[in-house]
Amino acid sequence: MPTVHRIHNFSAGPAMMPVPVLEEMQRDLVSLPGVGMSILEISHRSKAFEAILAETEADIRALATVPSNYRVLFLQGGASLQFSMVPMNFLASSATADYIDSGSWADKAIKEAAKVGTVNIAGSTKAERYGRLPAQSELRLTPGAAYVHMTANNTIEGTEFKRPPDVGSAPLVSDSSSDMFSRPIDVSRHALIYAGAQKNMGPAGVTIVIIRDDLVSRSGVRKASLPTMLSYAVHAENKSLYNTPAVFAIYAVGLVMKWLSAQGGLSVMGKRNERKAGKLYAEIDRTGFYRGTARKEDRSLMNVTFRLSSEALEKLLIKEATAAGLDGLEGHRSVGGLRASLYNAFPEEGVDELVAFMKEFERRNG
Amino acid sequence: MPTVHRIHNFSAGPAMMPVPVLEEMQRDLVSLPGVGMSILEISHRSKAFEAILAETEADIRALATVPSNYRVLFLQGGASLQFSMVPMNFLASSATADYIDSGSWADKAIKEAAKVGTVNIAGSTKAERYGRLPAQSELRLTPGAAYVHMTANNTIEGTEFKRPPDVGSAPLVSDSSSDMFSRPIDVSRHALIYAGAQKNMGPAGVTIVIIRDDLVSRSGVRKASLPTMLSYAVHAENKSLYNTPAVFAIYAVGLVMKWLSAQGGLSVMGKRNERKAGKLYAEIDRTGFYRGTARKEDRSLMNVTFRLSSEALEKLLIKEATAAGLDGLEGHRSVGGLRASLYNAFPEEGVDELVAFMKEFERRNG
Repeated sequence: MPTVHRIHNFSAGPAMMPVPVLEEMQRDLVSLPGVGMSILEISHRSKAFEAILAETEADIRALATVPSNYRVLFLQGGASLQFSMVPMNFLASSATADYIDSGSWADKAIKEAAKVGTVNIAGSTKAERYGRLPAQSELRLTPGAAYVHMTANNTIEGTEFKRPPDVGSAPLVSDSSSDMFSRPIDVSRHALIYAGAQKNMGPAGVTIVIIRDDLVSRSGVRKASLPTMLSYAVHAENKSLYNTPAVFAIYAVGLVMKWLSAQGGLSVMGKRNERKAGKLYAEIDRTGFYRGTARKEDRSLMNVTFRLSSEALEKLLIKEATAAGLDGLEGHRSVGGLRASLYNAFPEEGVDELVAFMKEFERRNG
Repeated sequence: MPTVHRIHNFSAGPAMMPVPVLEEMQRDLVSLPGVGMSILEISHRSKAFEAILAETEADIRALATVPSNYRVLFLQGGASLQFSMVPMNFLASSATADYIDSGSWADKAIKEAAKVGTVNIAGSTKAERYGRLPAQSELRLTPGAAYVHMTANNTIEGTEFKRPPDVGSAPLVSDSSSDMFSRPIDVSRHALIYAGAQKNMGPAGVTIVIIRDDLVSRSGVRKASLPTMLSYAVHAENKSLYNTPAVFAIYAVGLVMKWLSAQGGLSVMGKRNERKAGKLYAEIDRTGFYRGTARKEDRSLMNVTFRLSSEALEKLLIKEATAAGLDGLEGHRSVGGLRASLYNAFPEEGVDELVAFMKEFERRNG
């Protein structure tokens, strides 16, 4: 294998992949061992792909201890399509869905649900520019709600629920796009969890859905009237093979799951991710030259958002960091500032390099 | 590069990819030249990906001579999601959409449209098990139809329109999933063309849509009420970047477009595909041992469907062919029989090998 030039990518996603996974894909790209075709060519109904799909699901189940009354689905369209699929499958015209408005992506989910039915904003920190999470005591939940929707990690504002809020007996639906499998997850506290793979689980192009059997049944009631491709029941019945799935992206997720297992599983990843984020937050808090944007107790381990005293200084930092091989530090275009995304595959030495760069930048500009 | 074992894959899709494309992907998989990250890691909002997207679109436009009043979109969900998006965007409650019922996939498109509005079956050969295409003289078109929907190539039944039917001034919508870019295409005769990439244009995971500006405008009227991800207008306004697209699959399509251009473009591909299918049909027609299932004048250049005198003999052929490295010859599970799919990347020597095998099989079993 020739030596290749690689840089540290702090982008909010698609995000870095483990290098051993990239190297395995590279080795096998023209011809999968024992198959004689590329993963890009095999039929989704071939035995080879059936085995990949089954193994990927089994590894997901093992890593997250998914109970047997949940299905694992591999869909397309990202979280944005889930924003519509959730209410289209579960929000009846007579019912209300509760949404926790914790950030810009939650706001998008709310807008899509409002096209379908009645939405109750069960808690919101929009007026505070989402600089903190709504607290448990602030939640105003609807008795008998169709479901409660939350956003586990807010990539733009840099906040993250340490644990799911208590929502009583209502089914909890979580958009976990940006922190799923970055740490242990108690699946049994959720009714449905969805995530685009492209942060912690693989490349862009596949959406992982973990759904409890009773929600599959509820979805089945609407099967005949919904667009077939938007029915969870259809995808569950067809084991994610109703039509041609994103074969390559699923294969890639499978390899990342093997890598996660080899690292020691989600507990080990959680500790590693805490350590990585902890180092960066410590640097941000060290002198006041840098300023974290999220309330400390709500800080995300995935997306570390911070600012400098002026936009000019922020631009300078981004420019110099990029030149130093530290790429993708711009904050989301809607809020500006700086953001370092530290997903599973982001190496600790990349954080160390950024911290060293920040110290030096402060020395020259402080 | 080590020598790798590869077999001939006659599967109906995902289908064979050009080997030079696979080799280029393999070379660059860990680090894209000049980028320092894998294509599986780069942000969809990076300059590197913007360039890939723009170049892929430009190559599609050049290959198919796409007029300037059409947009090219890169979506997810395959033709199956298009089955719903087309009526949801264009079939008003007061209007009727005409559907040409030429095969099993057309039938699926019809079922999805009927969930949305009024459908007129403008012609059907269902009663003849789709063994031929509805003729122009048989079409009963609705004056002022919202659109006319056709299936350009019927993968299961092995029929293909040589040219689009005349539908007057109604917007013609074509599911071209299985023959788009296998030959020249007169885009200007269509209002919207869609295709999953995984037959002739790339791997599974991305859907190509070519849509005329007036349909983008019509779609815009419903933007506020439709699920955002199902609005053509939203995807057109956002140049396929409303949310994270299937980055890798788009990159792969881009490389296939370069390969198609290097082959000499769609005219050359059309002639090559005629020659490939011609050789196989000649063998099928040679003695009567094999029997083509589609009417001769409607035969598909992409999916050559045929039968033997008994299912036992068909099973034997499939078994022996697979052992000889000729894979994926089973007919679709809904119709049985045999099917050889000969998409763009399928090499002529693979057809020659199959013909030689068939002659020998007939000698032993005839």
